[in-house]
Amino acid sequence: MSPVAHGAAARHQPHPVGGPFEVIATDDTTGARRGRLRTAHGVVNTPMFMPVATQGTVKGIVPTQLTELGAEIILSNAYHLALRPGTGLIRELGGLHRFMGWNGPILTDSGGYQVFSLAALRKVTDSGVEFRSHIDGAPMFLTPEDVVRLQVDLGVDIIMVLDECVGANAARADAERAARRTLEWARRSQQVTTTPGQLMFGIVQGSTYQDLRLCQAGELVALDFPGYAVGGLSVGEDRAMTMTLAAETVAALPAERPRYLMGVGFPEDLIRFVGMGYDLFDCVLPTRNARNGMLFTSAGRLNIRLARHQRDEQPADAECQCYTCRTFTRAYLRHLATTHEMLGAQLATLHNLHFYLQLMRDMQAAIAQGTFAAWSAARLKRLTEGEPA
Amino acid sequence: MSPVAHGAAARHQPHPVGGPFEVIATDDTTGARRGRLRTAHGVVNTPMFMPVATQGTVKGIVPTQLTELGAEIILSNAYHLALRPGTGLIRELGGLHRFMGWNGPILTDSGGYQVFSLAALRKVTDSGVEFRSHIDGAPMFLTPEDVVRLQVDLGVDIIMVLDECVGANAARADAERAARRTLEWARRSQQVTTTPGQLMFGIVQGSTYQDLRLCQAGELVALDFPGYAVGGLSVGEDRAMTMTLAAETVAALPAERPRYLMGVGFPEDLIRFVGMGYDLFDCVLPTRNARNGMLFTSAGRLNIRLARHQRDEQPADAECQCYTCRTFTRAYLRHLATTHEMLGAQLATLHNLHFYLQLMRDMQAAIAQGTFAAWSAARLKRLTEGEPA
Repeated sequence: MSPVAHGAAARHQPHPVGGPFEVIATDDTTGARRGRLRTAHGVVNTPMFMPVATQGTVKGIVPTQLTELGAEIILSNAYHLALRPGTGLIRELGGLHRFMGWNGPILTDSGGYQVFSLAALRKVTDSGVEFRSHIDGAPMFLTPEDVVRLQVDLGVDIIMVLDECVGANAARADAERAARRTLEWARRSQQVTTTPGQLMFGIVQGSTYQDLRLCQAGELVALDFPGYAVGGLSVGEDRAMTMTLAAETVAALPAERPRYLMGVGFPEDLIRFVGMGYDLFDCVLPTRNARNGMLFTSAGRLNIRLARHQRDEQPADAECQCYTCRTFTRAYLRHLATTHEMLGAQLATLHNLHFYLQLMRDMQAAIAQGTFAAWSAARLKRLTEGEPA
Repeated sequence: MSPVAHGAAARHQPHPVGGPFEVIATDDTTGARRGRLRTAHGVVNTPMFMPVATQGTVKGIVPTQLTELGAEIILSNAYHLALRPGTGLIRELGGLHRFMGWNGPILTDSGGYQVFSLAALRKVTDSGVEFRSHIDGAPMFLTPEDVVRLQVDLGVDIIMVLDECVGANAARADAERAARRTLEWARRSQQVTTTPGQLMFGIVQGSTYQDLRLCQAGELVALDFPGYAVGGLSVGEDRAMTMTLAAETVAALPAERPRYLMGVGFPEDLIRFVGMGYDLFDCVLPTRNARNGMLFTSAGRLNIRLARHQRDEQPADAECQCYTCRTFTRAYLRHLATTHEMLGAQLATLHNLHFYLQLMRDMQAAIAQGTFAAWSAARLKRLTEGEPA
């Protein structure tokens, strides 16, 4: 699909029939659906997980490995890349795809969450965000329009609007102000000219206030974005609250648009959120935890550093077909982890990403076959029964 | 070749015609030669460089990448593996090849140099070495026989005898005692039963005393090892001294056996040592320096962290065909190095190992074609002219 034709659909004639997203199967008994999202750099089959490449690299993984893993879209971060090496520099060098050697779809987070979690001395006003770089303390100011332009410079496939994320314990008034501001910023973001082919997603905020989230979702949908994200969950609220908010918010988003739940979660979470009707996910868990010696397996989580794995000849997950599991024992992975060898992080990352991406493929197949409810019940049981032998 | 047939040649009927090493071409005007070393896990074309896998992993590189790079043999370390995870454990798990997923030849250093450089409170006697682990301070005592047995446990293709390495400034008496001890240890090592197929190399020491090295070499050759190493060079002596000692020592080693110069060096060094008649090399430079942002190129060394590479769209080395150079710009490699991303170390390591291994292949071809002298003069000129543009 040519970027030009696609861009016309995305920006000037939003969402005609045959627009960027298509639902190709829905589950009878849950909210799960199987879809296809067309982007300027290829089709994303949903539900799909996006490996995180915050600084323009999925830590420890080369792009050819991403392809071998079956990654169909990755997530990078406009905030981090704006600080280093600069989005202008990346634009000069031909855009983020070329810079990082990945020719598939890229979504960039806007940096709203990073300003919230990383930056010092931040001050959010209706105009935008003022903060100091978490790297060198340099003062920065970004409007929502700036943040869209950063992503235009990067040439990514999916642009996220700037949002204000407040913590789980925010007072009602603060949550309302942040939600209103996020909505207004979404409106302003739509006025910025993007490159034909780029899609822009709006973000629902609203902290832990259900009615606020629903109201916010309704207003955002009226702005007619080609996709919607739900942000500000899993930021400290309890788990039951996360589930309730996620389920109620997704119901307020149009079925014919992709729905992206930001920054979650564990494998069992993804199964539940897919059952609610979410299509896209990103999370640092498979990559970050890999670097700490935690491997996801079909029978639960494995701490590879434990002494019990010292002589263990089994692969990390006997059911897994990844390079790590086809080649190495737990004993070797433990040796690499305890000696702090880089290869330990690499092999664990490869495995965990394979695990997440295979889980998404399994979900896609189950939805297509109309067996998602039974499949998910069985998978959840195994995943949560405890550590593997 | 079956390990059994091979082992018979290596241990019980040492070096018949058609033994493990064969010189297939010699250069007319230099000492360079092109050879083939047969091991239980495959043939090594010489001259050859051995990537260093100290703890059972070439840092940042998976075994399939080693194969793609054309690595034909790697070096690991009996001392490190004895401390962690233990050579007994590796034996139980099927040996080092299986443990680390590398089915090609492996040579292990004995640990003599590591005791010298890493261990605390070491005490060397004629019986062996007493020291404390550099990891947890645990007291250890190893005889030369123990050190052979560690390597038997590992199941490696080439066993190095325990040697005593003294510094470049050692007094004559100390150097003599260490050399004599190393020789005696070599003799004792030969009495240990190894696994059929395993080759054992003796090591020439002698510090900076030329006559001592020659005397030591003569006595070692009388012990009739299937291969000889020259150790204790590049440990602090000046460069001219290294060159003189290396050249004079190699002349005392038999032409029909492989000659291994331990722990060197820069690309230009390797060319010079091959010209003297050395066949095998190992060095941490390509891997360690990669992790510090130093890349070897056909026009000299490149510090990828420098600001001058910030917008540089060139590959690290325009003449290089490695994955890194085919895929990424210097600007991206610099971004990875300055953000301390693991991928930066991985891509630089891939490149540097490719550079070293390609250099060895180029030397092999030049020797076979009888053009080594002219080829090496031209390569040395380019390599030492300074940093690339």
